[in-house]
Amino acid sequence: MTMLERLLGDRIKGGTLTVILPSSERSSVGSGEPHVTARIHDKKALLELARGPRLAFGELYMDGRITIEQGALIDLLSMVVGANRFEDGGHKGRLKKRFGLLKSLLPRRNDATASRRNVAHHYDLDERLYRLFLDPDLQYSCAYFRDPANSLVQAQEDKKAHIAAKLYLQPGQRVLDIGCGWGGMALYLNRVAGVEVLGVTLSEEQLRVARQRAEEAGVADKVRFELIDYRAVTGRFDRIVSVGMFEHVGAAHFGEFFATCKRLLTDDGVMLLHTIGKYGKAGKPDPFTDKWIFPGYHLPSLSQMMAASEEVRLIATDVETLRMHYGFTLRHWLANCDAHRAEIVALYDERFFRMWTFYLAAAAVAFEHGAMNNFQVQYVRDRRALPLTRDYMQEAEQRYRRPAS
Amino acid sequence: MTMLERLLGDRIKGGTLTVILPSSERSSVGSGEPHVTARIHDKKALLELARGPRLAFGELYMDGRITIEQGALIDLLSMVVGANRFEDGGHKGRLKKRFGLLKSLLPRRNDATASRRNVAHHYDLDERLYRLFLDPDLQYSCAYFRDPANSLVQAQEDKKAHIAAKLYLQPGQRVLDIGCGWGGMALYLNRVAGVEVLGVTLSEEQLRVARQRAEEAGVADKVRFELIDYRAVTGRFDRIVSVGMFEHVGAAHFGEFFATCKRLLTDDGVMLLHTIGKYGKAGKPDPFTDKWIFPGYHLPSLSQMMAASEEVRLIATDVETLRMHYGFTLRHWLANCDAHRAEIVALYDERFFRMWTFYLAAAAVAFEHGAMNNFQVQYVRDRRALPLTRDYMQEAEQRYRRPAS
Repeated sequence: MTMLERLLGDRIKGGTLTVILPSSERSSVGSGEPHVTARIHDKKALLELARGPRLAFGELYMDGRITIEQGALIDLLSMVVGANRFEDGGHKGRLKKRFGLLKSLLPRRNDATASRRNVAHHYDLDERLYRLFLDPDLQYSCAYFRDPANSLVQAQEDKKAHIAAKLYLQPGQRVLDIGCGWGGMALYLNRVAGVEVLGVTLSEEQLRVARQRAEEAGVADKVRFELIDYRAVTGRFDRIVSVGMFEHVGAAHFGEFFATCKRLLTDDGVMLLHTIGKYGKAGKPDPFTDKWIFPGYHLPSLSQMMAASEEVRLIATDVETLRMHYGFTLRHWLANCDAHRAEIVALYDERFFRMWTFYLAAAAVAFEHGAMNNFQVQYVRDRRALPLTRDYMQEAEQRYRRPAS
Repeated sequence: MTMLERLLGDRIKGGTLTVILPSSERSSVGSGEPHVTARIHDKKALLELARGPRLAFGELYMDGRITIEQGALIDLLSMVVGANRFEDGGHKGRLKKRFGLLKSLLPRRNDATASRRNVAHHYDLDERLYRLFLDPDLQYSCAYFRDPANSLVQAQEDKKAHIAAKLYLQPGQRVLDIGCGWGGMALYLNRVAGVEVLGVTLSEEQLRVARQRAEEAGVADKVRFELIDYRAVTGRFDRIVSVGMFEHVGAAHFGEFFATCKRLLTDDGVMLLHTIGKYGKAGKPDPFTDKWIFPGYHLPSLSQMMAASEEVRLIATDVETLRMHYGFTLRHWLANCDAHRAEIVALYDERFFRMWTFYLAAAAVAFEHGAMNNFQVQYVRDRRALPLTRDYMQEAEQRYRRPAS
């Protein structure tokens, strides 16, 4: 039995992994399809992997020091994470040892300057990149697959309807969209429900695109966008929607987030918070994602979110845990990236392409087998702000949903 | 301005309260309808009220040392609690001072013996009492009012359908009902969904009635009842339902509760937990309820429940906060008690009647203005145990709901 077989023998599930070492020695672990062959190009890579595989594997792949000779990266990741499913006990504290206590004890502070920097890091990437792998409406968050076979376009449309329905909208209401991205949700809410929307973002790229789209749609007076930290917004809003922004708030700022939202909501206001979260106790961030993709991000557990919102007396009226949807979404994005490899490499370079697709593949697998999911939490200030039952959601969702094409 | 006006002037809202003191002096506070007149019969009662009003008021009412001369007790309670709405900041820590730290620091232990004693205290009351104020199916938990004008009978039927729909039942499955009461839910699930049910209770009265009902319905082989602590149940179940039992578990035992449920669930199992809870941070129990009605009870906040269930990796897939429903339910129960006053007094005595109706009225008001609500939380062990969307709930609920009569 080779060293590799001893190391990985019980950490691979649902496929066969062949590893080609720098010495050209080959070892195989696992069994059955799919079959993935990975090559490790230099001896130092082995050492780096042994020291901290979570960060090292991504960086080695990015740098071309690990390459996939046969099969797909996502299948390799799936074999590894699938052998450590959240449901089966997951990583059982092994991670704790690995990443030390110190980092976890230091609160990660995202003040306005850091937030701006963190957002620019990711969202000021060229708009053309996002156009190459997202749906045409540029929804950069978990879609809603009523059927796994649905197209990404359909699933993103259905996501908007699903969220809009939970906002219990009335025509003429004022809506605040915190972290509005390229403006797709704000424009949608105005179109289907006749509400006025203020979208705020910290990305100049997103702001430019969003404003242009509102102009083109002839609704720039009803759907406005501002480059402003949500904590600096003034006034009060009948509704708040926030999709895929809470991930960047950071646990140290949860209280501030909910206090701000409460301040910005009218007494009979309703908020819908859509965020990636964790099934179990919230843990430390993935080191690759934190370093290369989303600096300062934090994925909350429900208990964390609830503790913070209870503190300011926001009432959680409805929680839905979207379990499989983000895995589907990410696999679509990854396939789109692969289909547009040449354009993405031309925009950036091969290394960027590998970094980007590693992030998407690793995230997909984390939603499929790991601790990641997507929470939709509805909040009110006053228990009487919503109808007695959730039936209005179903009714509104059907109304908003476009006829199947 | 009298002392009473100074004391109560800003603590009354939505009505007029006239108090007749032992000296026959009258003071009025508040304004408008409804008008309630209360008489305090002895001077010592004033002292007891000043010392700890939350417990004293209930006990003085129970003992006839405070009487309602005009209007309804529930309107008086509504004026007091309505002036301190949860949404407006509630009691703001005044309670903390009042009830001391010591009690809150001592964990309330509900081991099997204490649980048995606590349950017997309440649920071994004569079945005839419950028949006088509950619906004919003896549902002793929050009903589901699709319309506030619905009858209690209708709302309890709709509650059962609402819960059954969230269990995602398939014919032939084995269901465990933890805290089965008089067996209504277990019999319902068997009838509408063709499942086998084991109901467990700690009340001999409930066991006797539940078994008799299963016999009469000719389903005693499919719907079984046992007098057993849920922690002593063995085997595994496809589904677990628990309605109005978690309130008695106690915060010190939440971890044990969820660990036990996880052990009892099959890998692809689904659980629906229906419990009274608190909007804000879970606080100390109401002293009157704890002393006279439900010894050892604890109302959880969502953050408390989530923290405990995350610890054992149960996945919360859906949370619905039923906000107004229990207030409606309790007002029906109270009206039924009033309508059967003579029978209840004949079963027990006047003092019991006053204690019982005080509990129902105070609870109704706490759901209407205070921090109380009713959570329905759906749990799974495996993220794949449920369909992608919640649409199945709507579909099943309509199927289970009996045609409106």
